[in-house]
Amino acid sequence: MSDAQTLKQTVESHIAALPLADRQPENLYAPMVYILGMKGKRIRPILTLLAYQAVSGRPVSESLNLACAAEVFHNFTLMHDDIMDRAPVRRGQPTVHIRWDENIAILSGDALFAYAMELVVKDFPEKAAPLAIEFSRVSMAVCEGQMEDMDLALRSEVSIPEYVEMIRKKTAALLGGCLAMGAIAGGASSKQVEKFRQYGEKLGIAFQLQDDLMDAFPPEGFGKQVGGDIIENKKTYLYLRALELANPEQATRLQVLFQTDMGTDKGKVAEVLDIFRQLNIPGQTQALIESYFQEALQLGEELAAETDFGPMKAYLGVIAKRKI
Amino acid sequence: MSDAQTLKQTVESHIAALPLADRQPENLYAPMVYILGMKGKRIRPILTLLAYQAVSGRPVSESLNLACAAEVFHNFTLMHDDIMDRAPVRRGQPTVHIRWDENIAILSGDALFAYAMELVVKDFPEKAAPLAIEFSRVSMAVCEGQMEDMDLALRSEVSIPEYVEMIRKKTAALLGGCLAMGAIAGGASSKQVEKFRQYGEKLGIAFQLQDDLMDAFPPEGFGKQVGGDIIENKKTYLYLRALELANPEQATRLQVLFQTDMGTDKGKVAEVLDIFRQLNIPGQTQALIESYFQEALQLGEELAAETDFGPMKAYLGVIAKRKI
Repeated sequence: MSDAQTLKQTVESHIAALPLADRQPENLYAPMVYILGMKGKRIRPILTLLAYQAVSGRPVSESLNLACAAEVFHNFTLMHDDIMDRAPVRRGQPTVHIRWDENIAILSGDALFAYAMELVVKDFPEKAAPLAIEFSRVSMAVCEGQMEDMDLALRSEVSIPEYVEMIRKKTAALLGGCLAMGAIAGGASSKQVEKFRQYGEKLGIAFQLQDDLMDAFPPEGFGKQVGGDIIENKKTYLYLRALELANPEQATRLQVLFQTDMGTDKGKVAEVLDIFRQLNIPGQTQALIESYFQEALQLGEELAAETDFGPMKAYLGVIAKRKI
Repeated sequence: MSDAQTLKQTVESHIAALPLADRQPENLYAPMVYILGMKGKRIRPILTLLAYQAVSGRPVSESLNLACAAEVFHNFTLMHDDIMDRAPVRRGQPTVHIRWDENIAILSGDALFAYAMELVVKDFPEKAAPLAIEFSRVSMAVCEGQMEDMDLALRSEVSIPEYVEMIRKKTAALLGGCLAMGAIAGGASSKQVEKFRQYGEKLGIAFQLQDDLMDAFPPEGFGKQVGGDIIENKKTYLYLRALELANPEQATRLQVLFQTDMGTDKGKVAEVLDIFRQLNIPGQTQALIESYFQEALQLGEELAAETDFGPMKAYLGVIAKRKI
């Protein structure tokens, strides 16, 4: 019952059965169903299920509503982020603000968030207060992270710690929160909850850095457009670390390239990648990713001594290899 | 401690002391502090305080965080509604999406909603599940109401029951929810909670109809622009009831006038008001308001027999006279 594919299918079925379809007004509910139906890896709810099981030793099915709360929340953030980023497409389909309109995307996003709140508490009444407080704080962190992302995009000087703190809030905090909520529901001590959260945050930062790296240096046959972040002048870790290591000439060139909108000009991407290679940015990034994975591994070992952590390890092994 | 002015000041002080100022990133928190600082009547939190006191017999101060959750939520809806309505001004000050920008208004609104969730549960851990579920459902109803409002604006045919159901969700559901949450926190039975909710909803519908009426027929010396709803072609109860009672000539004229953007043309307002007067719309509206007040009064009498309802009655007496 806990292999990655089965867990994903369990989550998909539960999401598909949430009582949102056919509700009125259609302009509110149809976009909610639409974005939830875009699927995805469903990592967040699966982390909640596995943390609940690890702590309580009980069937993951008991925490399905709680787990799906995290996915519903995640889709709310996607719906609003797509408006803010003016993104026309998500997973090959038009985004909600394009397919419907911006007002509908604002309001359907709000309704997803409102609905998530009920899912957080409904099956664990005796844990409702710590669960709702955890959910509220994680939600605030995600909002802070998104705002910092928008702020950093407008600033010329960004430090690496600022970038890492931004991705911690924007991406990793929710992964940590999913594990923390599963652990709280399962009856973990507050010390254990904190370990689950840290475990998720370290993994989350590692995953995001890995995404940044693969955007510029995709593995063979990955089939994704190379250098999307470079085209969009995103100040990722790769760029920031390159600036630190660059000689004056390279630094000036990088800054000029990252201040110019050159569309999908392949010359720009190739030139930036060339500088990245000269400075061994892939190796530098890999080392940082590794250090976050090691921190997570250490926490995972402590958690394995206290909880039934095997299925979590197995699942994350699959995820880290990006097999699903 | 329970006269209207004192209650308002208690709420103001509590809102001003919420730990939001000086938090980073500034672009997220400053708009939250800004909109909460615009004041207002603070009816929603006061209803929560008084329902809590009526049921529990305990000091209103114990339910201040819960009460302010409703106000924080209300301000979240205002921030997002102002984007959707393209409203440049609120309470004489620039709206958040004008003073900052639209992305900031979306995200700061989201953060207000996230923060409200913590305030709902933090002081009543043993009631956290029913409180959070109530809060979630009311939030969904408010989203539905706002969507229905936008939907109805685009439709040529709107029935009076559809209009009343829209204002019930958009405006009255939160007033009902404030009373219900106060009652839940105070330890009311589910039957009592339902009565508090109904009481709030009936009052909320009456208040909204009263707003609609006063927009067209303000009392002497009210000092507000007359006919704002008419200028904006809003299909309020007054318009819908007039259409029902109009002879063919009046009906056609009303429909033509309400399909035209005539700016602040005084001739249009005067002509519509004249038709409204010919059809005794003020009297018709007053009668409907009265019927909702009567329903509330009946529920209030039942609640007065079961709870310490005196301060609630006194407060609503002041509100109904619009003295504060």
